[in-house]
Amino acid sequence: MPKARTSSVIADLVTANRILAHQGVLDGYGHISARCEDDPNRYYIGDASPPGNVRTKNVFRWDLNNDPAGHRHRTYGERFIHGQIYQARPDVHAVVHCHAPELVMFGASGIPLRPIYHMAGFQGEDPLPVFEIRDLFGPETDMLIRSNEQGAALARTLGDRAAVLMRGHGATIVARSVKQAVLFAVYAVINARILGQALMAGGSPVFINAAEGRGTAKVLADGERGWQYLARIATQGT
Amino acid sequence: MPKARTSSVIADLVTANRILAHQGVLDGYGHISARCEDDPNRYYIGDASPPGNVRTKNVFRWDLNNDPAGHRHRTYGERFIHGQIYQARPDVHAVVHCHAPELVMFGASGIPLRPIYHMAGFQGEDPLPVFEIRDLFGPETDMLIRSNEQGAALARTLGDRAAVLMRGHGATIVARSVKQAVLFAVYAVINARILGQALMAGGSPVFINAAEGRGTAKVLADGERGWQYLARIATQGT
Amino acid sequence: MPKARTSSVIADLVTANRILAHQGVLDGYGHISARCEDDPNRYYIGDASPPGNVRTKNVFRWDLNNDPAGHRHRTYGERFIHGQIYQARPDVHAVVHCHAPELVMFGASGIPLRPIYHMAGFQGEDPLPVFEIRDLFGPETDMLIRSNEQGAALARTLGDRAAVLMRGHGATIVARSVKQAVLFAVYAVINARILGQALMAGGSPVFINAAEGRGTAKVLADGERGWQYLARIATQGT
Amino acid sequence: MPKARTSSVIADLVTANRILAHQGVLDGYGHISARCEDDPNRYYIGDASPPGNVRTKNVFRWDLNNDPAGHRHRTYGERFIHGQIYQARPDVHAVVHCHAPELVMFGASGIPLRPIYHMAGFQGEDPLPVFEIRDLFGPETDMLIRSNEQGAALARTLGDRAAVLMRGHGATIVARSVKQAVLFAVYAVINARILGQALMAGGSPVFINAAEGRGTAKVLADGERGWQYLARIATQGT
Repeated sequence: MPKARTSSVIADLVTANRILAHQGVLDGYGHISARCEDDPNRYYIGDASPPGNVRTKNVFRWDLNNDPAGHRHRTYGERFIHGQIYQARPDVHAVVHCHAPELVMFGASGIPLRPIYHMAGFQGEDPLPVFEIRDLFGPETDMLIRSNEQGAALARTLGDRAAVLMRGHGATIVARSVKQAVLFAVYAVINARILGQALMAGGSPVFINAAEGRGTAKVLADGERGWQYLARIATQGT
Repeated sequence: MPKARTSSVIADLVTANRILAHQGVLDGYGHISARCEDDPNRYYIGDASPPGNVRTKNVFRWDLNNDPAGHRHRTYGERFIHGQIYQARPDVHAVVHCHAPELVMFGASGIPLRPIYHMAGFQGEDPLPVFEIRDLFGPETDMLIRSNEQGAALARTLGDRAAVLMRGHGATIVARSVKQAVLFAVYAVINARILGQALMAGGSPVFINAAEGRGTAKVLADGERGWQYLARIATQGT
Repeated sequence: MPKARTSSVIADLVTANRILAHQGVLDGYGHISARCEDDPNRYYIGDASPPGNVRTKNVFRWDLNNDPAGHRHRTYGERFIHGQIYQARPDVHAVVHCHAPELVMFGASGIPLRPIYHMAGFQGEDPLPVFEIRDLFGPETDMLIRSNEQGAALARTLGDRAAVLMRGHGATIVARSVKQAVLFAVYAVINARILGQALMAGGSPVFINAAEGRGTAKVLADGERGWQYLARIATQGT
Repeated sequence: MPKARTSSVIADLVTANRILAHQGVLDGYGHISARCEDDPNRYYIGDASPPGNVRTKNVFRWDLNNDPAGHRHRTYGERFIHGQIYQARPDVHAVVHCHAPELVMFGASGIPLRPIYHMAGFQGEDPLPVFEIRDLFGPETDMLIRSNEQGAALARTLGDRAAVLMRGHGATIVARSVKQAVLFAVYAVINARILGQALMAGGSPVFINAAEGRGTAKVLADGERGWQYLARIATQGT
């Protein structure tokens, strides 16, 4: 795999891990993966390192059944999220699974999470779907996505959306590239914070409608401008 | 334009970009401009770099119709905000357009945003105007200010005020100098945070009245003291 | 004044400025003073520098009528707060005037601010007094303490308490030493944050009673432990 | 005690102090201890240094009656929390006592604190117990745990749980190792923040049930992944 070591996807994935940790979207837990640029049936993901500590040497290939692609390294116990989504969604090239408090708040409290902020228009007009693990797997799980069966169920709840909330657990966010996934995750969190505050203050939120959502999503078509800034402060400071 | 490279307005504009990013008023998006010191029909603004990354080499002149003033560089897609406000408001020498979450919260939830904090007395007693892009441009925009027509409409909603909220999008803040614009933006955000919290806690806000607003605004006549502090921590750390 | 340059009170005052800026109690505005160790009729305060930028060379002596004690340096326009409180309160050796958002929120919204957190027991059981400048000086002030008359009025509202809120403006906190004043200010802010959140969440606060307040205040009799930590992170980073 | 100086428990305890200060769980006050690896009847704790400043040279042994184990160093006035819990709970190998605002908010407002977030499943399904010092020691204490009698009372309220809230004061969190205690403390705080926000926003929280709590607790069986990240950012920056 020496060739892969120079992949720009791997370089982006390493930077993405640092950005998401620096922004507080990930902490010692959660993960981001990317579909391999040269093989749509493989994805890159860190070994079991905390996301903020992932460097190039920690990234390995896994197949879409979530088995190691010819190596003996470990990865996260919830890798099933990644392979199952890549199977179900050929349009997806990057997946973030996070425990961001703002997203847990919505997923665990029954409050519909809709876009109130144009940078989150990519979410679409309707409330984000919520995956309740109890519905399919009963009240006695450890809440994690521990198998291909559970990963496939999560992918079904995600459907064709950009994100799915997971009750009491977090969220999974998908995108067409690593850079876009980072921006989607960052702005999904900020949108949740704004909507939460609007509700707390007794406001009457006006949501981004479907057409506005499609329009605003174009700002993050590549996410390059936001990425350049977030990458700089995550790796070089202000 | 070698002469312009040594303009103190450009130097201030670069520092302003760094301050506003450091304070979280801007992130990878948003922008600040300044009317040129030697030509009121031109303004300086960064190329399409994220604000926190703008340095002297990234600043160019644009005319008030938002066309490049004799160069081939790019700038932000929403430059129309800047030129149209400079046309409509000869008193304005700097314009900040931001997506600060605290300001989006008010603009998107119908809660009137008034000054509860003396440092935001410059806003004036009445609630800040809110620009609803749907009113003039219908429900299918991308919410951005993409043309001179839209910029002029925003300038009309701004009127003679120091700031205008933009529903689901952010705010635009104007001032007599770059330094003042930075301080206005920073304190508009803090005021929104305080008022939001007062409402959440069930308080009965006492607002800064018109005379108090005029009086307190004098503290930020030049904003020099606040600027010296914010510039130091943005560029040199604590 | 070369001797004064080596005073430990001046050294503490410089560190206090840095701590309070680092903790967000002060920003580019607000100030802290200390009664001179060798003359109870004089106090030290920074020149008109932003607090976080005050260094030893910026500290000068003022008399209790708020005139310069034999020099031609400037200081803050609201110096009248300091001299008038030192006149009225011989027990006070340090005064902080700040615009901390958490304290403005209470002072501007009519919600009584009482101690819910043992580190703020020094505040005493009863709600902090609120200075409404309109009551004595009418509805057309600039809200600042601009004269000895206004400073004396504030000192009367403070009475024998450790802090007074100023409607729409901030708070003034007094203590027996610079170190204690810093700790009092920091914990007054945290207490306000906790009480605000308890109210927002619909809780039924149990307040620190008078006896508990007297007991807990002893923890901050010198504030040395907290000071050692806050000084280190403000000046050396984590 | 030269041998002890090289103990990995001491090394972990020093890092734990730095992490908890960096995360804002501790500030200049609060403390963390660890049962000695070679003597279950002794525990390590810092001298009276602020937690974030504790280094190897500041750590000494104390017996479970909270007397110094053959030395003349000082420690925190509330050391009785530690020895009494180690006496009552042989399964406990580390104890954190903190004043985290999010935990004070719940303990002082009568709102039951339950796990809404899987990373806090270790807390167990039922609300955390709240220690009201007035119940046993009357309304005139200084609220601190100043004696073995008070420490034993706190240990009884803790019972077999992972944490106990202390009204108006903070919380005490226990675990099987230093690393686990750090992760428990960090996630207890985040859980409290999420639940608080859910209540403020008018949500209907779905709590982690008993079985889910047992399952999710396994993620923090050693806490190694989270520890590696938190230790790195606390000691080396991002």
